Amino acid sequence: MKADPRRRDPGNYAWTAEMETRFADMDVNGHLNNVAITRFFEETRIRFNWSLFAGALAERPRFLVGHVAVDFLAEGHYPAPVTMAYALASIGTTSFRSAKAMFQKGRCIALCDTVLVHRGADGPAPLPDALRERLEPLLLKGAAATAGGRG
Amino acid sequence: MKADPRRRDPGNYAWTAEMETRFADMDVNGHLNNVAITRFFEETRIRFNWSLFAGALAERPRFLVGHVAVDFLAEGHYPAPVTMAYALASIGTTSFRSAKAMFQKGRCIALCDTVLVHRGADGPAPLPDALRERLEPLLLKGAAATAGGRG
Amino acid sequence: MKADPRRRDPGNYAWTAEMETRFADMDVNGHLNNVAITRFFEETRIRFNWSLFAGALAERPRFLVGHVAVDFLAEGHYPAPVTMAYALASIGTTSFRSAKAMFQKGRCIALCDTVLVHRGADGPAPLPDALRERLEPLLLKGAAATAGGRG
Amino acid sequence: MKADPRRRDPGNYAWTAEMETRFADMDVNGHLNNVAITRFFEETRIRFNWSLFAGALAERPRFLVGHVAVDFLAEGHYPAPVTMAYALASIGTTSFRSAKAMFQKGRCIALCDTVLVHRGADGPAPLPDALRERLEPLLLKGAAATAGGRG
Repeated sequence: MKADPRRRDPGNYAWTAEMETRFADMDVNGHLNNVAITRFFEETRIRFNWSLFAGALAERPRFLVGHVAVDFLAEGHYPAPVTMAYALASIGTTSFRSAKAMFQKGRCIALCDTVLVHRGADGPAPLPDALRERLEPLLLKGAAATAGGRG
Repeated sequence: MKADPRRRDPGNYAWTAEMETRFADMDVNGHLNNVAITRFFEETRIRFNWSLFAGALAERPRFLVGHVAVDFLAEGHYPAPVTMAYALASIGTTSFRSAKAMFQKGRCIALCDTVLVHRGADGPAPLPDALRERLEPLLLKGAAATAGGRG
Repeated sequence: MKADPRRRDPGNYAWTAEMETRFADMDVNGHLNNVAITRFFEETRIRFNWSLFAGALAERPRFLVGHVAVDFLAEGHYPAPVTMAYALASIGTTSFRSAKAMFQKGRCIALCDTVLVHRGADGPAPLPDALRERLEPLLLKGAAATAGGRG
Repeated sequence: MKADPRRRDPGNYAWTAEMETRFADMDVNGHLNNVAITRFFEETRIRFNWSLFAGALAERPRFLVGHVAVDFLAEGHYPAPVTMAYALASIGTTSFRSAKAMFQKGRCIALCDTVLVHRGADGPAPLPDALRERLEPLLLKGAAATAGGRG
């Protein structure tokens, strides 16, 4: 993630939102804790997916988080807010990979990739076409739509 | 991580410890939450590193977490305890990569790789020799000691 | 709570259990955080109530937490474990009040009172007799069984 | 707290602020968790005290949280934001008691009282006059300024 300079520019993401930090997000070192940063990426994924799936599909698809990876680039601080950015990194057959970033005061603090696997009754199932159509416009600028979702 | 079957066998790790789960580790789905699982890996790293560094080095080295990746393999549940396993995946020049796993009732729930970077006054600094000597016996059984810490 | 010396003696409680502390329970001050201490009392309540209700009642009663009060008496530390103690402070008509305490290295760190209200279809409902019989032997030594549950 | 109707009217508090809820604030019941609600009151206290103490005193006074009590009045939900309200309930010799409330969609969800004790080198110390002058205008409308800080 960190080797790709496009990932550090909020303008390359499909969606951004400001979020508040909390005193409890700090650990004994006085910075935003690594796991708390992972929590911000969870919140970003959930808020984004709710708006993505809402009203779009006859039945809400079921996804499992298969993989999460975070690069920590700089210290984050309380009480300044953070800006969270979300895009898609790649769309596969039964899964897709999101590309997220966290900024504070204009600086990129962390990057996150998450693989969500679509679950059917018997395991991974193909992404519904209606969802795929919604996902494609959300790809990170310059990312390859044909890359595998499992990275 | 998940492609390597050695990672799912607790016998391949240098250190294991049982940890309690908490009601608060569950989310609305009634399973151990993904970020809560990441929290268990943080706790594992901290407890292991404290015992690793304790009394070993004239001065306690300073490390930053540069990267964390987690593969989620199965649902975890409350209130059963979990068994956390820790080994080294690889040792580089200025960093090392740990290989961790989480088990519940004998089943592997999640795998985690973490890259810790040794910090000097001006950025990444070579691992102290005394630490390197302590790290090498802790490699995951079958792992390559010469692989790069940055993966 | 703190004015009652009986509350600081683990021997006066009906049930005690040791629990692990976590790195994440500390805040920037390097102590166990106040809210994290409240989390330990939640965990104590849930574990105790599960064993209390299990197999005892034809139908599991539904309770709401109406009130929680905590006295903070001393700093708690990581990574030493804590000992949690649970008893009943009083049993009312539709609610009961628990008396809890948290100890570390033999020292009382915090006390907690919680009021649980029994919920029926239309609001507070009388405690089932079978539950009342189970609760009475659990009163804190010396506590008054006839005191109101709402304190 | 809950017996006092003034406490459920945001207009009686000296300070209010909107705060975001997070997915992680919910527990398995799908509501805002009781301890998460306590966490919102912690955040309120810290944000308010920082603005209260900032630039006001030659030396920042040291306070310990001695007591926290919460009345839970209604369920809270995600993802709607909450409105937090803060005032003083009473000002004592060495401590003061805050009166806080949490609202969501115009409904009072919870009330919280917190006692903060001023610490000197040898234990509780009188509140500095400069702080006392700042506190008095912040009393909950209709509250008695002469009441004891311990309630």
